[in-house]
Amino acid sequence: MEHDFHKWLRDHESVSQPVENLLIGIGDDAAVIRGSEMHTVVTTDTIAEGTHFDTSVHSLELIGRKSLAVNLSDIAAMGASPTHALVTLLLPNHFSITDAKRLCSGIFEIASNYNVSIVGGDTNKWAGKLVVGVTLMGQRSPSTTGWNLNGAQLSDRVIVSGSFGGSILGRHLSFEPRIDLSNYLAQRYQIHGATDASDSLSLDLQLLAQASGVGIDLTADNIPISDALKTADPQAQLDGALFDGEDFELILTIAPDVYEQIKADPMIPCPLTDIGTVTEEQSGLRIFNSQGVFQTLSPRGYVH
Amino acid sequence: MEHDFHKWLRDHESVSQPVENLLIGIGDDAAVIRGSEMHTVVTTDTIAEGTHFDTSVHSLELIGRKSLAVNLSDIAAMGASPTHALVTLLLPNHFSITDAKRLCSGIFEIASNYNVSIVGGDTNKWAGKLVVGVTLMGQRSPSTTGWNLNGAQLSDRVIVSGSFGGSILGRHLSFEPRIDLSNYLAQRYQIHGATDASDSLSLDLQLLAQASGVGIDLTADNIPISDALKTADPQAQLDGALFDGEDFELILTIAPDVYEQIKADPMIPCPLTDIGTVTEEQSGLRIFNSQGVFQTLSPRGYVH
Repeated sequence: MEHDFHKWLRDHESVSQPVENLLIGIGDDAAVIRGSEMHTVVTTDTIAEGTHFDTSVHSLELIGRKSLAVNLSDIAAMGASPTHALVTLLLPNHFSITDAKRLCSGIFEIASNYNVSIVGGDTNKWAGKLVVGVTLMGQRSPSTTGWNLNGAQLSDRVIVSGSFGGSILGRHLSFEPRIDLSNYLAQRYQIHGATDASDSLSLDLQLLAQASGVGIDLTADNIPISDALKTADPQAQLDGALFDGEDFELILTIAPDVYEQIKADPMIPCPLTDIGTVTEEQSGLRIFNSQGVFQTLSPRGYVH
Repeated sequence: MEHDFHKWLRDHESVSQPVENLLIGIGDDAAVIRGSEMHTVVTTDTIAEGTHFDTSVHSLELIGRKSLAVNLSDIAAMGASPTHALVTLLLPNHFSITDAKRLCSGIFEIASNYNVSIVGGDTNKWAGKLVVGVTLMGQRSPSTTGWNLNGAQLSDRVIVSGSFGGSILGRHLSFEPRIDLSNYLAQRYQIHGATDASDSLSLDLQLLAQASGVGIDLTADNIPISDALKTADPQAQLDGALFDGEDFELILTIAPDVYEQIKADPMIPCPLTDIGTVTEEQSGLRIFNSQGVFQTLSPRGYVH
């Protein structure tokens, strides 16, 4: 539903004014608003009981951590640095002050790790389930261009950070958002397309391809598989990596010569893997499988 | 719960860095972040089914309108102008795309009226009740000082816009946030203390007094009563104005000589009423009743 609805929202964006200082609006991982020295980047993501976490299984500290981490991942996908956050809590009526503080301590800890100031919020008790919403602001240098969902260019390499699959076994709560990688690359290299893998690697690749008006060819054997799936059979590993979702790794498209420089850079702060090529739009999303055959890839993701 | 919890949050604000560019943080109606030309003001408020609205009675358009209007009221209380908003929707599973569009059309209409661009958001369906969250950004001139919850000064007049009470009969959904008044005053006059009456006139006056370290003396006969209560008996009118809540009028404290100038200004865009005086902290919140007797005022508000 979200993407159809966002298309409708984008079509209605023009009803409101002024948009002259809006560099990037609805549909990318975050909005970018022109500033005189630095641009302001802002995103919001909300996590809810039963959809994104389960309070009967997950600690309140890790739920709080996740609420900010998913937003940090969006800021990383824009080549920006996080600065300020606002936190919205809808707390079930049975929640105690101690419960609320445990939740917030998880938010504060990761905020401190990434130099984010919590500057406001809204707290209500209600007869519903736990909802934790975060709005995260950041700044981006005007010299950082690209890093757009619609920025992929023909013949770019498709590069991912980290590894994929099996996030539900724990990493969806404990992942490190790729802020360090994003800041390192944004200061030194020209990135074209960029997003984070939140819905699933296949779905987010499709979004990037559609927004950019390109196709993507993937090489199955090159897709990095998370340790959580290392004991599964090869097909389950590949399916997990493509379809599980909530990996919160960066997906970047980069000109081949720039990627050669990045590969030779010993200071890159996390593993990067070349998983494919940006192609013409009409070839769509394809995967070159282990038997050496190209197949059309039908994206799907985790249904919360 | 909110205010105790916010005090705890404020005490923990310092765990996160950098705060050097944060002019106003947790606890006021919005945060103010230093900018090179204009300061950025940001606030977030979420409304939820059963707490702030009832979808079996209220139209989705008016619910959408309210979600932005309550945030506009916070921006008005900071002497700022709204610019950009992000919208978070948690939609019940039974919601249709048509329902979502009706909700958003109410947001878009008031956004357009107040020159707000919707620049992003987050939409999920879930097994819970309708939640609509808005984060609203704005800008404030560095020459606008005051307009703080803790800005009330001894001997200030206590001034309110509009009238109070009976909001639940309809005005809580249809009120006009006091952006025009705020912008007019911010450009021309020095305002000291400022907040909006959301919880209730008495509760928000108490918050302002406590934050500022002052007391407030009110004159009961001067408190403007909304038309919705005009048929009630005098005590019910006064109680409604003091305790009902969701009036979303501005509460300002202004030096007496400045207020004399404002009274003589024919261009002020809405009714203003002088309802009391800022006094010393130890006298607390008092009300001079119709019988000419000072009584201690015990604040209370609408329990959602």
